Amino acid sequence: MRVGLDVGGTKTDAVALADDGTVLARVRSVTGWGPSGVVTTVLDAVGRLGREGVDVSAIRSVGIGMPGQVGPGSHRVVHAVNLGVAELDLVAAVEPRLGVPVAVENDVKAAALGAAALRTGGDGHGQTMAYLNLGTGIAAGVVRGGRLWRGARGTAGEVGHISVDPQGPLCRCGQRGCIEALAGGAAIARRWGRPAPLPVLAMMDAADSGDTGAQALRRDLMTGVAAAVRILVLTLDADVVVVGGGISALGDRLMEGVVAQLDASAEESPFMRSLRLPERVERLPAGSPAAAFGAALVGAARTEAHITQERAVHG
Amino acid sequence: MRVGLDVGGTKTDAVALADDGTVLARVRSVTGWGPSGVVTTVLDAVGRLGREGVDVSAIRSVGIGMPGQVGPGSHRVVHAVNLGVAELDLVAAVEPRLGVPVAVENDVKAAALGAAALRTGGDGHGQTMAYLNLGTGIAAGVVRGGRLWRGARGTAGEVGHISVDPQGPLCRCGQRGCIEALAGGAAIARRWGRPAPLPVLAMMDAADSGDTGAQALRRDLMTGVAAAVRILVLTLDADVVVVGGGISALGDRLMEGVVAQLDASAEESPFMRSLRLPERVERLPAGSPAAAFGAALVGAARTEAHITQERAVHG
Repeated sequence: MRVGLDVGGTKTDAVALADDGTVLARVRSVTGWGPSGVVTTVLDAVGRLGREGVDVSAIRSVGIGMPGQVGPGSHRVVHAVNLGVAELDLVAAVEPRLGVPVAVENDVKAAALGAAALRTGGDGHGQTMAYLNLGTGIAAGVVRGGRLWRGARGTAGEVGHISVDPQGPLCRCGQRGCIEALAGGAAIARRWGRPAPLPVLAMMDAADSGDTGAQALRRDLMTGVAAAVRILVLTLDADVVVVGGGISALGDRLMEGVVAQLDASAEESPFMRSLRLPERVERLPAGSPAAAFGAALVGAARTEAHITQERAVHG
Repeated sequence: MRVGLDVGGTKTDAVALADDGTVLARVRSVTGWGPSGVVTTVLDAVGRLGREGVDVSAIRSVGIGMPGQVGPGSHRVVHAVNLGVAELDLVAAVEPRLGVPVAVENDVKAAALGAAALRTGGDGHGQTMAYLNLGTGIAAGVVRGGRLWRGARGTAGEVGHISVDPQGPLCRCGQRGCIEALAGGAAIARRWGRPAPLPVLAMMDAADSGDTGAQALRRDLMTGVAAAVRILVLTLDADVVVVGGGISALGDRLMEGVVAQLDASAEESPFMRSLRLPERVERLPAGSPAAAFGAALVGAARTEAHITQERAVHG
């Protein structure tokens, strides 16, 4: 049995997988703040899986996905700002307590791996899938032939900071018109400027009610996501782009807007039409355990997960 | 001994490689027009290598790079418009006459493979190199760990038709602000509008002389190339981007402009600075046999060339 955790900015999702990939148990908890909060969250989540009937002694590995930069095969997480973590050797902190091998991976990369496994049942050989995470920021994870592809410096899939409009809004990275400045949750909230528990949802509702400022932001959101899809397909030849992350909870309201943008750019362009982009964009199902599932695969392999050898089945 | 040919729109470059990758002979000829012209060009080029002292009976394979779409492991070339070829089974046409295995590859992909082999002596394992071809159009070839990466549908590296400016010039593909519309040779010549044997060079000279229209085109050229570099690094995590193709003959005038653009976009962006893009851009040396060299590797493998096993040496 393998355990996978997705330690998010607010919630932590944990799954226990049988050897055939079946999800045996799943628990969600609130993520603690700072290094010690994260460590406690991880240990508690594994304990809670035990109280859900999981035989804790049968756990062979624990994989953890979390925001921030994680080197390949590394134990260390740096710049997980949403968790209040500047730097943390999470493996050193939890492995002795858990008593099984632990591996850490960037959350978007783990989710990419999990989304690919859940889509194809592990039989992803030959296919390139990009997982486009629309959250506070924007980044993509790339899975080729069932294996995570991080690139030599770990920046593969960093489409968020590609500028697609020299006149576009200023990005927190210092450039103008980055995809993240158009479509990232933090950028939308900042530009929307009104307090709301879910600013992107509030902006979408206001746009539906005729607010022209909100409509401009909505247009930018769809433009940014469509640009990311085009770049992922044209540069990586991704067979499919799976959209996930907090903003993907907008569901059809998001996907219809993105498809309309893709259709509009293809209207005058036979080349773009030939790529059939709208058919190649999917949304990660709401409530999908992809990130925790992928983390479990990372844990099982301890480095890059060879999910082609996994028998992953939808939980 | 392996022979490689780069069949270009005007000239054909042919090399004969020893088993250790040494270039034994190199001949250049004028490319014939249309399917029969291309076939004659290929047969003549091999014959001319013989007259340069190559023992034609020792040739074990012939690889041919040419513009147009070539499927993986395919014999057929389609849409090689610059050569007057709508469709041609080049292998069927020349293999019986040459009496050795023949393989065909898209010229940019062949050049990418050759550039990678010539850069690293074949030891490209683990590195990702993007070869950005600045010609009539713009496309990139991607070599990972010494192997050509074409993607499932062959569109990997098609950065030319990514829009980076919604207000930019109209592209022949129908979109606005495509990288190719900013930096492709045909687009520059069309926008420049004055007859010249080398329109991009004429535009650059006019820009140097203070022509404001030419200066705007020059700015677009540098902007487009810099955008392609950023996209290749951020999406593919390319370790290095090698710039080649006709426009790269501008030499330092091109590279200095591109680096200035990369520096400008990084000025306000610590993230972009951290990528050290100017250090990761190189120009293919003038007169490099990369394309014919890569074609020889393709011929040797008949499908994707495993250049990690080649001992490639500069000719």
